[in-house]
Amino acid sequence: MFEKILPVITAPEGFKAAGVKAGIKKSGKEDVAILFSTVPAKAAGVFTMNQMAAAPVVVCREVLKTGTAQAIVVNSGCANACTGEQGLLDAKKMAAITAELLNIKENAVFVSSTGIIGTNLPMDKVAGGIRQAVKHLSDNGHDKAMRAMMTTDTFAKETALSFTLGDKTIKIAGMAKGAGMIQPNMATMLAYITTDADIEQSLLQQALQTATELSFNMISVDGDTSTNDSVIVLANGLAHNSTIRDKTGPEFKIFSAALQEVCTYLAKQIAHDGEGATKFLEVQVHGAQSFADAKQVAMSIAKSPLVKTAFFGQDPNWGRIICAIGYAGVPVKPEQIALAIGNISIVKGGMGTQADWTALKKVMAGHDIVLQVELGLGTAEATVWTCDFSYEYVKINGEYHT
Amino acid sequence: MFEKILPVITAPEGFKAAGVKAGIKKSGKEDVAILFSTVPAKAAGVFTMNQMAAAPVVVCREVLKTGTAQAIVVNSGCANACTGEQGLLDAKKMAAITAELLNIKENAVFVSSTGIIGTNLPMDKVAGGIRQAVKHLSDNGHDKAMRAMMTTDTFAKETALSFTLGDKTIKIAGMAKGAGMIQPNMATMLAYITTDADIEQSLLQQALQTATELSFNMISVDGDTSTNDSVIVLANGLAHNSTIRDKTGPEFKIFSAALQEVCTYLAKQIAHDGEGATKFLEVQVHGAQSFADAKQVAMSIAKSPLVKTAFFGQDPNWGRIICAIGYAGVPVKPEQIALAIGNISIVKGGMGTQADWTALKKVMAGHDIVLQVELGLGTAEATVWTCDFSYEYVKINGEYHT
Repeated sequence: MFEKILPVITAPEGFKAAGVKAGIKKSGKEDVAILFSTVPAKAAGVFTMNQMAAAPVVVCREVLKTGTAQAIVVNSGCANACTGEQGLLDAKKMAAITAELLNIKENAVFVSSTGIIGTNLPMDKVAGGIRQAVKHLSDNGHDKAMRAMMTTDTFAKETALSFTLGDKTIKIAGMAKGAGMIQPNMATMLAYITTDADIEQSLLQQALQTATELSFNMISVDGDTSTNDSVIVLANGLAHNSTIRDKTGPEFKIFSAALQEVCTYLAKQIAHDGEGATKFLEVQVHGAQSFADAKQVAMSIAKSPLVKTAFFGQDPNWGRIICAIGYAGVPVKPEQIALAIGNISIVKGGMGTQADWTALKKVMAGHDIVLQVELGLGTAEATVWTCDFSYEYVKINGEYHT
Repeated sequence: MFEKILPVITAPEGFKAAGVKAGIKKSGKEDVAILFSTVPAKAAGVFTMNQMAAAPVVVCREVLKTGTAQAIVVNSGCANACTGEQGLLDAKKMAAITAELLNIKENAVFVSSTGIIGTNLPMDKVAGGIRQAVKHLSDNGHDKAMRAMMTTDTFAKETALSFTLGDKTIKIAGMAKGAGMIQPNMATMLAYITTDADIEQSLLQQALQTATELSFNMISVDGDTSTNDSVIVLANGLAHNSTIRDKTGPEFKIFSAALQEVCTYLAKQIAHDGEGATKFLEVQVHGAQSFADAKQVAMSIAKSPLVKTAFFGQDPNWGRIICAIGYAGVPVKPEQIALAIGNISIVKGGMGTQADWTALKKVMAGHDIVLQVELGLGTAEATVWTCDFSYEYVKINGEYHT
C-alpha cells in the first residue's frame, strides 16, 4: 500500500530544511536546524509527560493551541530545561527570531532544544544560527538538519513513504533523534513528521496520538523519561487531495496507517541506537486480558537491568524474564506462561523446556532478537522495543562529566 | 536505649546455628544452613510480592499460618523457583527431613532457597546437608550458617542488640544475604531475625511488617524483585519478660524500635553490598504530601540508571535527578524543588545554584553519599538506600552464563 521513497524530511511538497553550525555544541558540529513549510500547515504534537517539561515544550503547547504552524526551530547542545523565567523568554525569542526572518507569525513556530539540563541558552549563538539556517533553507538541507538534532546518536533516523488518495499522491516523511534519556545529560527524543496531505487538524492530532501510543511510547532504552521529548507533525495540504474530514472513512484509515508506519520505523531505529546497545530486542506479549496489561508486562521485561545485561551476555536466562513478569503488577497464572526466544520454546507451563541449546545460543548471538511471551489469559497483545545494557552504556553515562 | 552486642544470630537465648557443605554450590562452599530454637518460638514473616513465588515461599506461608516455628532450613545454589509440583514436593521434603531429625513438627520448619531459577533441587545432596547441619548445630555455628546463605555477597551481614524490659534483658539478632535480584540468576534477599523476647504472635507480625516497610522495602539495587525474598522472625520467649500483649504499651514500642533498628541495619548493609557497587547512596525526600509520595519520588531517583551511572562517574548531575523526580508520577511544583548533595545546595527553586564545585566534587568522590530532596509540598518524608551502577554490575550480570 505504501511505497518507500527517498528518506528525506523534505520529500513531501513544500518543505525545506537547513542545519548549521552555531557554536553551541562544544564539538563544533551542526547544532541549529529549521524545518519550514512554504505554506501554513495543520499541526499536531505530543510532548513529554515529565512534570519538569522544558521551556521549549511549554512554547510548543501554546503553538499547538492554534492548530497550525509553518516552521520548527531546533537546537542541540543545551536543553533549556530547569531554566525558569529566563528559559521561557529564550524559547519564545527563538520562535520570534525565526518567525521574523521567515516572515510568518511568531505562534507558527515550534521550538525544540536538546542537550545539557540547567544551563541557559547562549542566545547570541542561537540567534546567529537561526539567521544562517534561514538563509540555507533548501530541498537538500535534510542531512545537515538531521545532524543538528543529533547528540550521541550513531546514525541518522529518516524515512519517507508515498501513497495514493483518490488521484493524488501523498508523501509523508519523518526524522528523529535519540531515545528518551539515552544521552549523557542530553535528554530527549525528538521526532518531526512532514506530509503534504490535506487533513483536518483534529484528525491529524488523533492520528498522531494513536500512532505515538503504538510506537514512541513502546520503546524503552533505560526507562528514564526526558524533560524535552517532542513529536510534531506538519501537514501542509500541498498534495491537494480532498481534505480528510471523516474519521470513519477509508482516507483517514490509510493516512493513519502511513503515519503509524513512519512512527514505528523511527521508534524502532531509536531503540536500535540506544546508548551502548549491542542488541535490538522486540518483546511481544500475547494472551493478555488488555493492551494495558500486555504493555505493562512487556515494559517490565524491557526495563529490567537483569534481563538487559543477560541479553548483552548472550545468555538465554529465562528465570530473569519470568521474574520480571512476576513483579510487573499484572495478575498472571505462572502455570500458563510460555516463553520463546527466536521462535525456540524455552518455557511452557511456567517451567523450562528441554530447548535446543545450540540453536538458542545461535539466536542469542544475533543482533536482532524477538522474545515472545504468552500469558494464556486473554487475546490482547503488545510489542515493545528495547536494547541491551552494556559496558558502553555505563561508560557513556558514567564517564560523562558536567 | 539499645546496646550493640556480639553480632551473631545465636546471641539470643536458646538459638543454635550450623552451616555445612552439601555439594549444591559448584564452588564447593557452604550451601546448607539451619537455625534452630531449642523451644517453640512465635513466628512472623514477610515474603516476596512477586507472583512467581518460589516453592519454599509457598511452604513458608503455610508454616506462618500456625503462628509458631522452631527451625529455618536454607540452601543456596538452587532457588527451587519455576519448578512446579516437583519443586513444592522438594521444599516440603526439606522441612520434613529437618523436622524429623530435630524431633519437631514438620509445620514448624521454615524453608528458604536461593540460587538458579528453573532447576530442581538435588535432593540427595540437600538431605545429606541437612543431616550434617543438624549434627553441627551449636552456639558458634553462625559464621558457617551465614556463609551457606551467601552467593555473590562480598561480606557477612549480621547485627545484634540487647535492651531491657522490666528487669529482663532481651536480645535480638539478625543476619541477611544479598539484595533482591542482585545475583546472577540467583535472586533473593533472605533475612532472619532471632530474639528471646516473649511477645504475642500478632504483635510480632505487626512489628515485622512495620519494620520491613521502613527497611527492606526502602532499598533498591536494580529494581528487580526476586521470586524468593523472605524475612522471618523467631521469638522464643526465653528472656522470660512478661509477654508483650499491649500494642499501645511501652514494651511493644521498645521491642518494635529494636526490631526496626536490626532490619534497617541489615537493609543498609544489603544496599552497601549491591553487585558491583562502588557507592552507597541515601536518598532522602522531604516535604511531600504523604509517605507514599515521598517514597515514590525517592525510588524513582534510586532506580534511575542515569542517576546511578552519574554517581558511579562521581558527577553531581542534578539534571538527571530533577528529571527522575519529574517522571515519578507524583504531582510536584518544579519551582519549589530543592536538592542538596552532602549538605551542599545544588538546586533551589527548581534551578541550579552557584554551588561550590570543589566541595561538591569531594563529596562525590566519597563512598557514602546523602542526597536530600525538598519538594516543598507538605511534611511527609521517606529515605531510600541504594548503590551506584558500575561496569562491574554489567560484568557480573552479563558475563554470567546459565
